[in-house]
Amino acid sequence: MKSHQPAAAPARTTVPPVAVTFVGGDAGTWCVESNTGVVGPALPVVPCVEVVEGDLSDSRSATWRLRGVVSSERYVERRERDVLVPIQPPLGREAATSAALIAITKSQEWWSLPQDERRAIFETRSGHIARSLAYLPRISRRLHHCRDLREAFDFLTWFEFAPVDGAAFEELTAALRATEEWTYVVAEVELRLTRS
Amino acid sequence: MKSHQPAAAPARTTVPPVAVTFVGGDAGTWCVESNTGVVGPALPVVPCVEVVEGDLSDSRSATWRLRGVVSSERYVERRERDVLVPIQPPLGREAATSAALIAITKSQEWWSLPQDERRAIFETRSGHIARSLAYLPRISRRLHHCRDLREAFDFLTWFEFAPVDGAAFEELTAALRATEEWTYVVAEVELRLTRS
Repeated sequence: MKSHQPAAAPARTTVPPVAVTFVGGDAGTWCVESNTGVVGPALPVVPCVEVVEGDLSDSRSATWRLRGVVSSERYVERRERDVLVPIQPPLGREAATSAALIAITKSQEWWSLPQDERRAIFETRSGHIARSLAYLPRISRRLHHCRDLREAFDFLTWFEFAPVDGAAFEELTAALRATEEWTYVVAEVELRLTRS
Repeated sequence: MKSHQPAAAPARTTVPPVAVTFVGGDAGTWCVESNTGVVGPALPVVPCVEVVEGDLSDSRSATWRLRGVVSSERYVERRERDVLVPIQPPLGREAATSAALIAITKSQEWWSLPQDERRAIFETRSGHIARSLAYLPRISRRLHHCRDLREAFDFLTWFEFAPVDGAAFEELTAALRATEEWTYVVAEVELRLTRS
């Protein structure tokens, strides 16, 4: 079939990665408490954020949208996953009424490194996974990849925790920001939120 | 600014991955010589393919579009890259009037493996990079990632070579299809093309 409309691709035979859109605007489940440009500018100011799973073509009114996919793991190895999986809490816990969205872009230099050198910086020298383990199961986390979507940011990481664990979250992010891995971060925004 | 139109995301601070659309239809630089469903069905029949770099929202008339991005390397290590780079030929060589587009989807099982186990299958046990080395610089290659775009296929690999090297290309693909890595392939289409 020919048409001047964009043609459909053949149907996918396996389940695609879960798509997630963070929608900043006047309505949403999460109230924005702070919006900080850690490296570079903050996001445009919004009172609320909604987390929309599934269709990336969501058309609700919004000030901004950040899109990502829950894709395959790029660095975690078997022995690490075997430690992580039993203690990783799910999203949506009733007591976890605090959240954070950290949006990050890494440099061209980072992306041009081969896999073994990125892994060495990420874990061997920066301990990204090892440091995070100490905060489980207090902090839930979901990573969304966006670089292949050519979005503004390369990663969107969403965290949920009880208000009493806010200080632990701040300790973790401060430790990560002091690592060699973070020398490759060229843009970073941190939103802190409370469930409405 | 609020609107019922999709909101713009903040501007990207680094160069996004190069986006490429393979457009199957009545016009294009490449004439389709064969269209084979290696695993699962072939693509809808078209006489021509155009390779469009850049904007993924290309609106020319088409029977199908396959989209991907030239993203970061997921498996290649430094010592392998140091061998590959000096002998990898570019696309667009005058004598390379033959081409192939191989579209692949891997299983959910593949994507749920941790990085070290995918790497072990890909290279240690299947020799994907090592086997390919023997065919350089005869065969040019560019890999496009599409899984995070939630496209029909996970990968689109584009090859260019002189007609005299067609048999070498067939030898390489036959060898790869016999590896452990290929036991995870759940959909594969091979298009062979000639520059018009």
